[in-house]
Amino acid sequence: MTAMKRNPAEIRFLYAASEASADIYYFTGVFVPDAFLAFEFDGKRYAVVSRLEYSRVVAQSKLDTVYLLETAKEEAAKLLDLQPQAVGPAELMRYYVRQFGAESVRVPADFPAVFYSQALIAGLPILVETQAFFPQRAFKDDTEAKAIRAGNAASAAGIRAAESVLKRSKIVGTRLKYEGSTLTSERLRTLIDQACLEKGAVAHHTIVAGGAQACDPHEGGHGPLKPNELIIVDVFPRVQATGYHGDMTRTFLKGKANEGQRALVAAVKAAHQAALNKVKAGVSGGTVHRAASDVLDAAGFVTERRGDQFVGFIHSTGHGLGLEVHESPRVSPGAARLKKDQVITIEPGLYYPEIGGCRIEDVVRVTAQGSEKLSSLHYRWEIR
Amino acid sequence: MTAMKRNPAEIRFLYAASEASADIYYFTGVFVPDAFLAFEFDGKRYAVVSRLEYSRVVAQSKLDTVYLLETAKEEAAKLLDLQPQAVGPAELMRYYVRQFGAESVRVPADFPAVFYSQALIAGLPILVETQAFFPQRAFKDDTEAKAIRAGNAASAAGIRAAESVLKRSKIVGTRLKYEGSTLTSERLRTLIDQACLEKGAVAHHTIVAGGAQACDPHEGGHGPLKPNELIIVDVFPRVQATGYHGDMTRTFLKGKANEGQRALVAAVKAAHQAALNKVKAGVSGGTVHRAASDVLDAAGFVTERRGDQFVGFIHSTGHGLGLEVHESPRVSPGAARLKKDQVITIEPGLYYPEIGGCRIEDVVRVTAQGSEKLSSLHYRWEIR
Repeated sequence: MTAMKRNPAEIRFLYAASEASADIYYFTGVFVPDAFLAFEFDGKRYAVVSRLEYSRVVAQSKLDTVYLLETAKEEAAKLLDLQPQAVGPAELMRYYVRQFGAESVRVPADFPAVFYSQALIAGLPILVETQAFFPQRAFKDDTEAKAIRAGNAASAAGIRAAESVLKRSKIVGTRLKYEGSTLTSERLRTLIDQACLEKGAVAHHTIVAGGAQACDPHEGGHGPLKPNELIIVDVFPRVQATGYHGDMTRTFLKGKANEGQRALVAAVKAAHQAALNKVKAGVSGGTVHRAASDVLDAAGFVTERRGDQFVGFIHSTGHGLGLEVHESPRVSPGAARLKKDQVITIEPGLYYPEIGGCRIEDVVRVTAQGSEKLSSLHYRWEIR
Repeated sequence: MTAMKRNPAEIRFLYAASEASADIYYFTGVFVPDAFLAFEFDGKRYAVVSRLEYSRVVAQSKLDTVYLLETAKEEAAKLLDLQPQAVGPAELMRYYVRQFGAESVRVPADFPAVFYSQALIAGLPILVETQAFFPQRAFKDDTEAKAIRAGNAASAAGIRAAESVLKRSKIVGTRLKYEGSTLTSERLRTLIDQACLEKGAVAHHTIVAGGAQACDPHEGGHGPLKPNELIIVDVFPRVQATGYHGDMTRTFLKGKANEGQRALVAAVKAAHQAALNKVKAGVSGGTVHRAASDVLDAAGFVTERRGDQFVGFIHSTGHGLGLEVHESPRVSPGAARLKKDQVITIEPGLYYPEIGGCRIEDVVRVTAQGSEKLSSLHYRWEIR
């Protein structure tokens, strides 16, 4: 259970689908749709895959050795004196522990409980890692930074598509008309996601939320978009070729903003800049968060609970970004010191149903001197 | 560990992100991007979510009670005599076990090992379910069947987009030209996925694989598509509003097919029909698979291993389809009897690098008399 010094004879198992789990994709470098067993021993990488995947995994992965599942099951059955059909992931673990002479076993926090418990019952000396299984995943080299830039180029393409549609929309009463139809959150989301695809990235749960809907931070937005309301557009697609994400947010308004909306957007923009200015290796995520919240507090925007609703600056300033949309490190109250090469979002926001919501988000890589921006798009927001 | 009769005082916990895990989405009916705790006790549904999700989850979910995470942590800390920041999912589990007077605890097979082991160490009477956590997920009511039909309408829109592009492409030497550029798997995939988005569905890892590439069943396809080669197009998008998938495959050829390709396609089409004809409640998945493989064997297509490569009919005839692309039941050798209302794919295929690959896939719901097709698209495949 506890984090301990790595035993050189420790074997580290993963079991997941690499299309769904970032750790096993990071480890193997290949997308596989169904869960499979992979492991690390003595600095080498191994996986066991079915015949449907075998030649593709051999050709595309960064594994040192790929075993064929059907053969591995037979060999494990022989060694463990079982029928091949009785060999599942836990039995394969027992087999490889013996084959490699491993003295201890470690699995990640999200390892399936069923195989952990079977391995435990079978007497394997197994520990669950409570911290990151690959702490180095938080540190992005130049290739990864480039992949995240490509993700943000897709995000920016999506946001630009939204801006262009809003520009070409006409205000008709309380509706926006685009190409003859009422413009909805759903329609705009489709056009954004299609623009992301043009850049090779798949977007999920893109947020296009106007007015009071935008004050529920994970509300995707639905129904007609309205003139003179703030519209949050948050786009976090995954580049299909690399698995890395972009994550950018801009807030638009079609029509004419009122003073309350202008003050809200100005405060968020100032908080965004203050937080960006603070990012640097050695500065804590908590300090970066406070830089943003201080600006919002000073501008008179109060964060509080109103019954079931929370208003003001109700989320963290940011989070790590990479193979997952939300990953280490945190940029929130109490968060640890940032380190060189970590990639984080900076995305303060304000949410008041009576005014609307605003969030502005970019992505940076932490450097010794400050940060390097990995996203790029203008901040103009009022669209006449 | 073992499957046992349900204790009425059993509490069943889930911990996952409902955007990623089908079980917790099935249970809660709401998409949440980060992992959260949910549980079932005495027929009622509960979840614990952060303030970012709270009001949306209250409004959109099918939960009976939604707890606010921040409050739950404070209350659990008080009861367990801990600091609130020391309260994680395992501590919340201990808290709710006490609050509800639960006598046993059950978690799904893919429950995170870290919280399972913490609960175990804390003395909770916890069992891991080795079978499906919600066996009823395999049975689709009319609403779910309709959602799967919508998924297949998206798949069909994607495949039709591919067909239309192939029709409008010109053969120039060994390449296909579309709108002035060489047509690649990547380009065609983008156009397919954009067509799926028009139907409200997000496609992942759409397969557009020609020639020998198509003989690696999970190879997505890359580079220029060629005339006179079989091209497998397999599209399995997820409808964003409902979470249900479509899954359809057609095989095309632009140019002129040779006799070997015609025989291959004819055999797969016959196997597809033979398997469809066999589907009926009470008939085993193994029998349905054999109906397909018998046709292919009789047509002289041999399934075998050639070094690292497997050729012939190298995968199962089908699989369950719903909130996941691959779910229960199986339609493969030895698979159990099909039951009314299960939804399965029927997708035999043949793969020989020297001829090419062909797969034809539709989706049906099992009925007492046979099956109801939930996908619809023609089978013409030669495009001049």
